[in-house]
Amino acid sequence: MRFAKGHGTENDFVILPDPDDLVGLSATLAARLCDRHAGLGADGVLRVVRTAALAAGPAGVPGSPARGAAAHSTTRTPDSAEWFMDYRNADGSVAEMCGNGLRVFTRFLIDHGMAEGPALTVATRGGLRRVRVEPHGGITADMGPVRVLGPGRAVSSGTVLDGLRISVGNPHLACLVDAPLDKFDLSAPPELDPGQFPAGANLELVQLTGPAAIAMRVHERGSGETRSCGTGAVAAAAAASAATMQATGVERSGSESWQVRVPGGELTVTLDATTSWLTGPAVIVAEGELNSAWLAAARR
Amino acid sequence: MRFAKGHGTENDFVILPDPDDLVGLSATLAARLCDRHAGLGADGVLRVVRTAALAAGPAGVPGSPARGAAAHSTTRTPDSAEWFMDYRNADGSVAEMCGNGLRVFTRFLIDHGMAEGPALTVATRGGLRRVRVEPHGGITADMGPVRVLGPGRAVSSGTVLDGLRISVGNPHLACLVDAPLDKFDLSAPPELDPGQFPAGANLELVQLTGPAAIAMRVHERGSGETRSCGTGAVAAAAAASAATMQATGVERSGSESWQVRVPGGELTVTLDATTSWLTGPAVIVAEGELNSAWLAAARR
Repeated sequence: MRFAKGHGTENDFVILPDPDDLVGLSATLAARLCDRHAGLGADGVLRVVRTAALAAGPAGVPGSPARGAAAHSTTRTPDSAEWFMDYRNADGSVAEMCGNGLRVFTRFLIDHGMAEGPALTVATRGGLRRVRVEPHGGITADMGPVRVLGPGRAVSSGTVLDGLRISVGNPHLACLVDAPLDKFDLSAPPELDPGQFPAGANLELVQLTGPAAIAMRVHERGSGETRSCGTGAVAAAAAASAATMQATGVERSGSESWQVRVPGGELTVTLDATTSWLTGPAVIVAEGELNSAWLAAARR
Repeated sequence: MRFAKGHGTENDFVILPDPDDLVGLSATLAARLCDRHAGLGADGVLRVVRTAALAAGPAGVPGSPARGAAAHSTTRTPDSAEWFMDYRNADGSVAEMCGNGLRVFTRFLIDHGMAEGPALTVATRGGLRRVRVEPHGGITADMGPVRVLGPGRAVSSGTVLDGLRISVGNPHLACLVDAPLDKFDLSAPPELDPGQFPAGANLELVQLTGPAAIAMRVHERGSGETRSCGTGAVAAAAAASAATMQATGVERSGSESWQVRVPGGELTVTLDATTSWLTGPAVIVAEGELNSAWLAAARR
């Protein structure tokens, strides 16, 4: 079985090219691939499947993502895609979308001539997503609409943090802070009000570093502090935008871009009227073949 | 550049086959390879070099390890070896030896027909080491002599721990404990008496689980708690042996074997009059090629 390993701002992935949907990726195998000591090690798995192969039938993926997703697409999104991103978390569970994952997935397709750039559409469980290769080499992914839901609060290692509840498909609490980011302790999960966050949330600590620039740290629900989080970067930019708007009294018109420094690198978030975009590096580290004895044991 | 990834009881390594000593492995590149998010991820790098290529000259490895090491060999060790294990820690620094690494190194040689089993000798910075492939598929490595130096003490997260100071080439404090191993907190480095441990030490918590069986957890100097530690397993077995001898009053004669359960799996340690042996699984997970763009950036 072939694989690649790649990362986007140090959010890292095992990529499994499986155009004809033959690999049979179980939750167990996905978790073993992501094991950082006994496997290859990654934050998640990106299986690369042709939507036509999925629509035809087999595999453990419900329905045809290309068609199912079309219902959620925005007006500018085509209603089909050649490739489906089958994303799994490090514990093997299925997830709808992963912004940095989608950018690395796109890099893999382009590098292998499996898709023509600079712009294309990828099917995900979260719907069809537009992606594009930028002239400077970075990759941009459509992150979908952002909704600011209102104020929220968390207690993180004894510190009360006030911020904004923001949905980027998944729930966030993005908190602008004055103290330097390295003064905070994110080793423990934040305490959240279940009334505000019935399904928990990612917590972003956000510091304004310039007129259109922020730095952030993120505690991801179920994963702890991570080097980068695509939806977290979008939520952080939306919180910074809202705070700037409140401070200046100037309403946003058209799109605006924010530079977002995360522990694993630099991202750019663009917010426009209908959606959000995440731009940044997407890197393939290595490619190869899984050892057949290891694979047989991992499948058991 | 080719690579493999493998592990021994979840002590994991990037293997770089470099028979002719052409790779030019810098500390920076080693550290980038071991980076668990931006690289391949591992506890260390095992570069596989022909000793003849090293003896001939180039590379950043001082002298000929095959000859330099011969001075340290025991009477049963041949005075030369075809292959040199160039071991690097995850931070890129050079280290003399790594027991689990040597076992994985041997698996790689045998799997690729680069050496004939079942027994061979490998050159390391710590001297020539005998290894052998066991009939059940495990791999055994000569860990060298063990010296019990006397009693020692550490304070780990507020708990006073008494044990034995043991040298397995590197310094250890192995402490037999009564409480279940999962009751201890090894998240912080232990406080050691600098008089007893001028260069620090690895700390092993050891529980007797049978007449010739122990379970252990280990805090490695400079690395924190790990899934496995070869010299730590040897030190733990030596401490268990000394305690048993003291309790029963029976002196050891000949060799004795201990089953050692570590968080990452099962090892067997054999102690004999002149040396110690570490036996256990050694697994190749995958093999492949580093991406040339990633490699060019990692070399900068």
